[in-house]
Amino acid sequence: MKDKRTLIKKTPEKIGEEVVLKGWVNTRRDHGKIIFIDLRDRTGIVQVVFVGLEKAKDLRSEWVVEIKGLVKERPENLVNPKLETGKIEIEAIELKVLAKAKELPFDTSGTELNVGLPILLDYRPLSLRHPKVRAVFKVEETIIAAFRESLKREDFTEIQAPTIVPSTTEGGSQVFKIKYFDRDAFLGQSPQLYKQILVGVFERVFTLAHAYRAEPSVTTRHLTEYLGMDAEMGFINDFEEIIETVEKVVRDIFAKVSEENKKELLLYGATLPKLAKKIPVLKMREAQQIIFERTGRDNRHEPDLEPEDEKEICRYSLEKYGSDLIFITHYPTKKRPFYSYPDPQDPEFTQSFDLLGRGLEWVTGGRRINDYETLLDHVKKWGNKPEDFEIYLQAFRYGMPPEGGFCLGAERITMQILGLENVREASFFPRDMERIDVRLPKLEEK
Amino acid sequence: MKDKRTLIKKTPEKIGEEVVLKGWVNTRRDHGKIIFIDLRDRTGIVQVVFVGLEKAKDLRSEWVVEIKGLVKERPENLVNPKLETGKIEIEAIELKVLAKAKELPFDTSGTELNVGLPILLDYRPLSLRHPKVRAVFKVEETIIAAFRESLKREDFTEIQAPTIVPSTTEGGSQVFKIKYFDRDAFLGQSPQLYKQILVGVFERVFTLAHAYRAEPSVTTRHLTEYLGMDAEMGFINDFEEIIETVEKVVRDIFAKVSEENKKELLLYGATLPKLAKKIPVLKMREAQQIIFERTGRDNRHEPDLEPEDEKEICRYSLEKYGSDLIFITHYPTKKRPFYSYPDPQDPEFTQSFDLLGRGLEWVTGGRRINDYETLLDHVKKWGNKPEDFEIYLQAFRYGMPPEGGFCLGAERITMQILGLENVREASFFPRDMERIDVRLPKLEEK
Repeated sequence: MKDKRTLIKKTPEKIGEEVVLKGWVNTRRDHGKIIFIDLRDRTGIVQVVFVGLEKAKDLRSEWVVEIKGLVKERPENLVNPKLETGKIEIEAIELKVLAKAKELPFDTSGTELNVGLPILLDYRPLSLRHPKVRAVFKVEETIIAAFRESLKREDFTEIQAPTIVPSTTEGGSQVFKIKYFDRDAFLGQSPQLYKQILVGVFERVFTLAHAYRAEPSVTTRHLTEYLGMDAEMGFINDFEEIIETVEKVVRDIFAKVSEENKKELLLYGATLPKLAKKIPVLKMREAQQIIFERTGRDNRHEPDLEPEDEKEICRYSLEKYGSDLIFITHYPTKKRPFYSYPDPQDPEFTQSFDLLGRGLEWVTGGRRINDYETLLDHVKKWGNKPEDFEIYLQAFRYGMPPEGGFCLGAERITMQILGLENVREASFFPRDMERIDVRLPKLEEK
Repeated sequence: MKDKRTLIKKTPEKIGEEVVLKGWVNTRRDHGKIIFIDLRDRTGIVQVVFVGLEKAKDLRSEWVVEIKGLVKERPENLVNPKLETGKIEIEAIELKVLAKAKELPFDTSGTELNVGLPILLDYRPLSLRHPKVRAVFKVEETIIAAFRESLKREDFTEIQAPTIVPSTTEGGSQVFKIKYFDRDAFLGQSPQLYKQILVGVFERVFTLAHAYRAEPSVTTRHLTEYLGMDAEMGFINDFEEIIETVEKVVRDIFAKVSEENKKELLLYGATLPKLAKKIPVLKMREAQQIIFERTGRDNRHEPDLEPEDEKEICRYSLEKYGSDLIFITHYPTKKRPFYSYPDPQDPEFTQSFDLLGRGLEWVTGGRRINDYETLLDHVKKWGNKPEDFEIYLQAFRYGMPPEGGFCLGAERITMQILGLENVREASFFPRDMERIDVRLPKLEEK
């Protein structure tokens, strides 16, 4: 390679050598004849000293530069313990400006980026460069990689599901409509139907899929476009096998984040969720009873847990089992999608589950109906037209084993691991009712 | 684990043992008192013999079954060399039907699935189960994994780009419009702008992204939704560095497919493309001159290569350099997107390239303009409004290194490696003008 560049994290190994560094000016301190900059590249930050190099006076934050310099050990009393490269500095010999930058809209030099969420998102290309913001996405990358690796080890096949779909399959109100040539089509709310179809082909499948929800409200935990980590498995012996697989995947994710993202966790003062030897499992009705006993709040006949209930049962799980995570199973059949598998012991409730963590839903899943006639019957009972499900129903018409699966939201798990306040912080370019990259014009202004 | 299941590929190791198998009836042969089935699971096919087991008479293709049986070695003269398990068979003891199947619309038992493309797609859940059809997607899975691994080794970060975009960025005609609450939005034609923005954050990035083209014609090589394998890298020294990276990625893909998909390649009689020690590189004008000299076809002033030209120059590459692949560079500036980097030596042409393979485009890429003022100027000259590119332009306003990147189409590379006739065969659920899962009603029928 022609490239003689040294990455910043390697500089402490090169004391006494001449190196070529490339990166961005993170901060600049002008002391008259001497100018200091902190130079940033993808691997770290290092201090560069310019003595009598006139050009260096022009440098400003975010300018992109190439610097030839000498790696010098710092005297003991000038070591900067906050920098990984704090024992050395670079004495600049040559400076080449690769690109300039306009004046920044806010200060980016601190360890915290002290701007509110709207500004953070209005200036996304800039805010993402801040080491603490950037760290979110290194953690998310690890989570996604761990998900894939965990399932590949269990002989799952990675599949690709389409996102343009012919009809609204899981309820019509929260779906985006597309003009597809001269017809209507829709954006898929999840790869659910396709991953199920492909159980008939590969038995065990997973996919990373964008999912779209026309969520008509702005909350701290919903995006209109998010990344689903979906899996589905056939020839299961029972419902518990799905839960066991989720637990394994979650543990693999924690293990990999813990190994590869120590620095990122530290930036957020984050610790991975506590896990007991086994993640506890409660039926929804049992959870409601416990919540009633603990708080006096009587939601024992409600069809779902409310946000407050989810928080309470997570507190209970931590107190009683030492686990930040807890499975809640057996949600009411009527409230779950048509493909959910009613528990043969109690068909009013399905073999479905949510995995709650630190007060919020992390994973949702369950066993599915695999018998064609039953499925067809449910499609109709749930108010759908079988012809809108032709490809899906076909998979069951031609023989489908007992199966089930689950979905984890990548942004939400990242948010929950790092303790972020808003799921938008865990999305590179979050979309909601009010924003697609830029703030959307208010209706009355149109 | 409670599961005592033995996978079919493991059965030859279990001669004399009792095993539990699960899978689909691939074929069934009724010889009166004796019934044979070929049982299929995700790992292979094995012959099962039922002697006097009445229930077995009911079995039909694609029924899902669990079978307890004894693994027996076949006599020498009954060994089936076509089956990996051909030295053994299973003497069934117990049969449990997990799911039945309706009568199949076509015969699925042969080594070829003799149906035309429309039927192949009308019955996608069934046709995908055929070992030869299924093989396409094991190859595609390998290609995708190889792409990721190759770039991770070079310290690229995996990023996620949104697909709902606020404006039409690369030409308005071939873009799908979405109803986004009470406004219009669009489906991204590529993650181009987002991956460039993120070079400012991670320097080197890649992403697997669905891309959408409202392609108004039905060809053998276009899909309206396809999977782009996109990469972008900053701090490049020159244009050639991008080409070198593409070559490395392509070689890594071939190496992994060659190692992991021997069986699949064999099913298609496919060989990986021939590569010379280095993939040859020609400028577009040079290619046109060569084509003129070889064929008399004078396209020397055309702004692009036509499909026939692409085929001819690939033939030339194979004859002259022994390479099935060839880079064509320096397409005209006016015909490339606004962000393309004009060659300083000859600004009428850009530092852009296509990688052609076996007569078709595999990869497209190039160096991009990284200077803010030049980019702004190009945005306007190309007829766009800067305010539609606010987030994108911001990344350059605040300092962007010299950079470039490329995109490979996952389906198209799969198609080209296996020698498929139509790119639809390399898409799980291909979308085009006439089909989203099912055939769309013709306009006059609406």
